Amino acid sequence: MTEHTYAVIMAGGGGTRLWPISRKERPKQLLPLLGEETLFQSTVQRLANLFPPERILIVTVEEQAREMRLQTPEIPEENYLIETAPRGTASVVGLAAAVLQKRDPEAAMAILPSDHFIRNRDLFHYLLNAAFEVAANGYLVTLGITPTHPSTAYGYIQQGETLGGNYKYPTYKVKSFKEKPNDETARSLLRTGDHSWNSGMFIWRADAILKEIDRQMPDLGNALKKISSAWGTDVQSSVLGENWSGLKVETVDYGIMENAERVAILPAGGLGWSDVGMWSSLFEVLLPDMNGNIATNSKLHLALETHNTLVHGGNNDRLIVTIGVDDMVIVDGGDVLLVCKTDQSQKVKDVVEHLKKHHQEKYL
Amino acid sequence: MTEHTYAVIMAGGGGTRLWPISRKERPKQLLPLLGEETLFQSTVQRLANLFPPERILIVTVEEQAREMRLQTPEIPEENYLIETAPRGTASVVGLAAAVLQKRDPEAAMAILPSDHFIRNRDLFHYLLNAAFEVAANGYLVTLGITPTHPSTAYGYIQQGETLGGNYKYPTYKVKSFKEKPNDETARSLLRTGDHSWNSGMFIWRADAILKEIDRQMPDLGNALKKISSAWGTDVQSSVLGENWSGLKVETVDYGIMENAERVAILPAGGLGWSDVGMWSSLFEVLLPDMNGNIATNSKLHLALETHNTLVHGGNNDRLIVTIGVDDMVIVDGGDVLLVCKTDQSQKVKDVVEHLKKHHQEKYL
Repeated sequence: MTEHTYAVIMAGGGGTRLWPISRKERPKQLLPLLGEETLFQSTVQRLANLFPPERILIVTVEEQAREMRLQTPEIPEENYLIETAPRGTASVVGLAAAVLQKRDPEAAMAILPSDHFIRNRDLFHYLLNAAFEVAANGYLVTLGITPTHPSTAYGYIQQGETLGGNYKYPTYKVKSFKEKPNDETARSLLRTGDHSWNSGMFIWRADAILKEIDRQMPDLGNALKKISSAWGTDVQSSVLGENWSGLKVETVDYGIMENAERVAILPAGGLGWSDVGMWSSLFEVLLPDMNGNIATNSKLHLALETHNTLVHGGNNDRLIVTIGVDDMVIVDGGDVLLVCKTDQSQKVKDVVEHLKKHHQEKYL
Repeated sequence: MTEHTYAVIMAGGGGTRLWPISRKERPKQLLPLLGEETLFQSTVQRLANLFPPERILIVTVEEQAREMRLQTPEIPEENYLIETAPRGTASVVGLAAAVLQKRDPEAAMAILPSDHFIRNRDLFHYLLNAAFEVAANGYLVTLGITPTHPSTAYGYIQQGETLGGNYKYPTYKVKSFKEKPNDETARSLLRTGDHSWNSGMFIWRADAILKEIDRQMPDLGNALKKISSAWGTDVQSSVLGENWSGLKVETVDYGIMENAERVAILPAGGLGWSDVGMWSSLFEVLLPDMNGNIATNSKLHLALETHNTLVHGGNNDRLIVTIGVDDMVIVDGGDVLLVCKTDQSQKVKDVVEHLKKHHQEKYL
């Protein structure tokens, strides 16, 4: 790491796959899903000793920023980049790059989701260092995750030949990005041995990503130039507001990475990574007891003949009793109680759709 | 029915097998477990057209009487017989018989538990009429329930030869009373074809049961004579209190019926009877939807891939969502949430024992 390396935490999203705990008003990253800390706090903590707080930026929306300032008071106020409305990760990445480029023309940045889990912090630090080394040569670097099962929940990245340059960690050219596959395709991708999960973690120099934005998304590039000119002046807010709302909603993967030049991947196994994307994934990141059970946010779980069951309590004195329960997720969430077979927890999104359709927004 | 026939509802108990809805402070019979009415209200309603309210007596404890007066205002105040402390059903039966005998020397009475379910009211009325006909000849009559499965939750009554007397319903002498059997014994009892479940419903003349009490439980008989003398006088309460607390705690089955003379049984099939003795029994008495699911006290149950599952809500606006749930009982009960495989619902009593042992009385 150098004085020119920055971390940018993307924290604007509001997923529903961990409903009913994750809600419109209180998205996943702001929740203490794994214990005392929220996922957002853990993401910031994970960067300690690598980036001083002055070099950690957060891109989010105002509603969430209020809570984040309370959760991580060490981050300076000027490091919050506030989206006036969500326009996709391509715009987020561009805004962070434009602001950093203005602050520090030599800036290199790691783009990090705010709501992921990583068990092996040392390896994570080692990989970030290795990735910045590659990014220094103008590459757009992605951290790939070595798949542990044929997941249909992630996009995949196919690696090509080794990148020349004598880097300290095995580094490859990227051959292709692939959308979330169906089950059959996922199995065949796994068999090739050259595909990684797309973790959404990217490392690059600000000027390198801005060059790709100018080439592939010129409208975004032009807007970013106007925003950059106004940044730090009296008209910062108004210029951001004017130029932001008209931007095409696009992800960094489809909008930039898929057709970018000089894209590299560091495939990482053993990171203990999870996107904590649905209730079943908590079994990967929390440590079950000898019966395979996990109790989070619950002081009182009384389990008889219960196995491989997650109980997420309402953080109160409620007693939760399970008898003869196997492979279930039980979420005692305020105005909603969810009881779900673990291997069907992806269907939570169907429930959310149902509630939207039937105008039951108060439960969302 | 004649002007000398009475119904006596035994309502003092406080079982824990429907915990966490049934609580020390609010026992099963006072709860609207099956819909709008409480089990106690249904028991009283079931007697309509058969007994006027003036001939329905209730034996209970003061804590419960308060709630009962609210639930069934038609029962006159003097028809409440208040136990100063629970002394078992033998004492309850004796008190009711002594009080009725003093009020009406010709009294005959049906003893009825307050917390049972009976689907076929017409047949129930027919059987009561038939039983009073037999009781008029001095018999202690029990209503037996023709078993539908080898239950280990009930005592059994073995019938002997047909009782002579040309009664309108098949009536038998009782050969023996049997305690709750183990599974193997229950199966063999079922195969004999001459065993009924002991429903706890009895019909007899007051003088007949008092005679048996005098013969088999002389201490109780003497106490009842003192209480009867004082009944309706200024010292009713004090005499009841003095004589009640020293009584041996005994059930009517073991204390009186097992060794009584002139005991008869009317074995009843098709009554649609249930003692609503544990959560799984609600599947017998409530009507499931096409997926086998039942939602009680819950306005909002959203079921995906859910079958044969009972959801008992907290009677509020809480949304209960089940995904991939089969054969479960889910009880959302205030300070306790219970999730239990239906065929293990008898283990609720183990939970109650555990809570007692660990001084968690606030959940009982």
